[in-house]
Amino acid sequence: MKFEIMRHRLLDGLNVVMKAVSSKTTIPILTGIKLEVTEKGLSLTGSDSDVTIQTFIKSEEDGEQVIRVIEEGSIVLQARMLNEIVRKLPTSDVEMEVKENNQTYIKSGKSEFHIIGIDPTEYPLLPEIQDDSLLIIGSDLLKSVVRETVFAVSTSESRPVLTGVHWQVKDGELICVATDSHRLARRKLILENPPEDEFNVVIPGKSLNELSKIIGDSSQPVYIVITSQQVLFKTKDVLFYSRLLEGNYPDTSRLIPTEYKTIITMNSKALFQAIDRASLLAREERNNIVRFSSMEGNQVEVSSSSPEIGNVEEEIKISTMEGEEIKLSFSAKYMMDALKAFDGQDIVIQLTGAMRPFIINAVQDNTLLQLIVPVRTY
Amino acid sequence: MKFEIMRHRLLDGLNVVMKAVSSKTTIPILTGIKLEVTEKGLSLTGSDSDVTIQTFIKSEEDGEQVIRVIEEGSIVLQARMLNEIVRKLPTSDVEMEVKENNQTYIKSGKSEFHIIGIDPTEYPLLPEIQDDSLLIIGSDLLKSVVRETVFAVSTSESRPVLTGVHWQVKDGELICVATDSHRLARRKLILENPPEDEFNVVIPGKSLNELSKIIGDSSQPVYIVITSQQVLFKTKDVLFYSRLLEGNYPDTSRLIPTEYKTIITMNSKALFQAIDRASLLAREERNNIVRFSSMEGNQVEVSSSSPEIGNVEEEIKISTMEGEEIKLSFSAKYMMDALKAFDGQDIVIQLTGAMRPFIINAVQDNTLLQLIVPVRTY
Repeated sequence: MKFEIMRHRLLDGLNVVMKAVSSKTTIPILTGIKLEVTEKGLSLTGSDSDVTIQTFIKSEEDGEQVIRVIEEGSIVLQARMLNEIVRKLPTSDVEMEVKENNQTYIKSGKSEFHIIGIDPTEYPLLPEIQDDSLLIIGSDLLKSVVRETVFAVSTSESRPVLTGVHWQVKDGELICVATDSHRLARRKLILENPPEDEFNVVIPGKSLNELSKIIGDSSQPVYIVITSQQVLFKTKDVLFYSRLLEGNYPDTSRLIPTEYKTIITMNSKALFQAIDRASLLAREERNNIVRFSSMEGNQVEVSSSSPEIGNVEEEIKISTMEGEEIKLSFSAKYMMDALKAFDGQDIVIQLTGAMRPFIINAVQDNTLLQLIVPVRTY
Repeated sequence: MKFEIMRHRLLDGLNVVMKAVSSKTTIPILTGIKLEVTEKGLSLTGSDSDVTIQTFIKSEEDGEQVIRVIEEGSIVLQARMLNEIVRKLPTSDVEMEVKENNQTYIKSGKSEFHIIGIDPTEYPLLPEIQDDSLLIIGSDLLKSVVRETVFAVSTSESRPVLTGVHWQVKDGELICVATDSHRLARRKLILENPPEDEFNVVIPGKSLNELSKIIGDSSQPVYIVITSQQVLFKTKDVLFYSRLLEGNYPDTSRLIPTEYKTIITMNSKALFQAIDRASLLAREERNNIVRFSSMEGNQVEVSSSSPEIGNVEEEIKISTMEGEEIKLSFSAKYMMDALKAFDGQDIVIQLTGAMRPFIINAVQDNTLLQLIVPVRTY
């Protein structure tokens, strides 16, 4: 293997695949990045065995020569080290060459490194995935879908399947659900090009968070291939593989009440900020609980108190209220997470008394639902 | 106590005094900030008993009313909590009032907090310092003096006096010295208005680091008052007190060689970057050692190797070299710390063989000296 490459392009590629590399891995070769160069360009692969990311840097792009390939070949180099070296090299070009015994020579200006590499044939192969059935979603839309649901996954390993987001494709619709049994987030998306098959998989929350960091905010399509054990997200330059979680995801539809006694419409940002303030006093307490009560004159009150610190009250104007008066308590964190997903929009909160789950939707749009189970304090 | 204040002014003041507040203190009242309001304005005080910071917000500034004082008084409130509350309040004005039992009412818009305060008479008094003898140094110059020396203090408590910077005022000159016995930094400064008395004190490195964060980059004067146990730095708005370290600072002048066998002039930035790169391979090893050798043709070589990772070499052009050939090894970290103090200037390195301390000065300016003790490897 021998090639020259524009330093910033190599660095950009490394930064993408580094996201899959964990320093905590028990498989030593996975602390490395695999580089493989052919006439067409350089592919970089990083993996922690749950998530694998591959990116491809073309030799020529828009008529500009990015890589000059002198000899095809491949090598595995320690990821963090390689990234730091490339970041600190003195000139805008890098020369790399694998010599005998996987010894790798890296040169830039007058700086010369000889790094001990690892035999690339020992690097795990990528999962084989046939892409005959595809979901296609724009990058920015995919990012929203992830952002609006993934925070609600469980962080406890007691029911591993709840640490993932349930993705179901059915009747031309994608339904994403996450729950940790105290709250639930559900996002529905009508697919423009629905696949022929139905799917029913659980994608680890951690993988979706990593995916979000990699895909851009553009409307470029992401091609999603789902198999029984793996999901692959393909963008123009990046292949992102994640294993799927095993086990049946619980039926969550029956958790969502269908009738409500109180319906409040208000702005999500005003409510978020008031809860953020009230939670300052609740923070020291277990669970970080705030109170929420309807008031006369189209207002709600958010309040919190702690015997050792003090108390806080705040009245917030609402748009409308229908039905019974309501007083309940909930986790400030859960409520703030849910409200953040509405990004400042006006929302409808539908409640059924102090001890029943309540739900939140956007006023204009029913595709996103957030459910929270209140906490007993009244 | 009752007053109204512009929220961002209160927040700016809190952010300054918060720098002295430690959550690790064993004195509970020092987790709080003392607020004291008079007709003239609001003073805020924070302390961790080593460092005390006081700032004063004037009621009126440049014809603008910053504070409306309704009743004079004082209170101590939990620092982190108060800071977060003020940061998150909804409007640009804050109303504060102390009610019975130190209960403190904070209001902004429709948000109302009742916080349990602490009796302000229990808060430690500021050290009494008479300012008959003063050093006066511009803020930016003071910051440089600190930056160029403080990194070299010892982090080990085995000789506590070495965790501070030795400040000596003598013959119209301020001499600042820090050493951890493996390296030494010395900065001399001719005082424009030298005080009548001589001084000889050791200021904790930690205090000087905190001071640097607070004083601005302007050329505004800082008034420095030194007593036997305390030093006070006074700027327009802030009083910064630090305790001094006890014990005699060692005589460091005899550590600095006076004759040299090799003199090299080169650019500090080029050398810094080469060592930064070489240290990537040295990092895993104990002490992070790099090699430095003079070469033919007005060059030096910086290199490093690690049996498990590989090796790196880099040649750097120098301006001039006089005297004997040299080969030695040193800590990459110590050398990079020292070079950083020269801020990219051209430097003179004066050496006396592989095992003797060497020194660095700027080419144009002899006020700053950095000394490093090499490590035995050749």
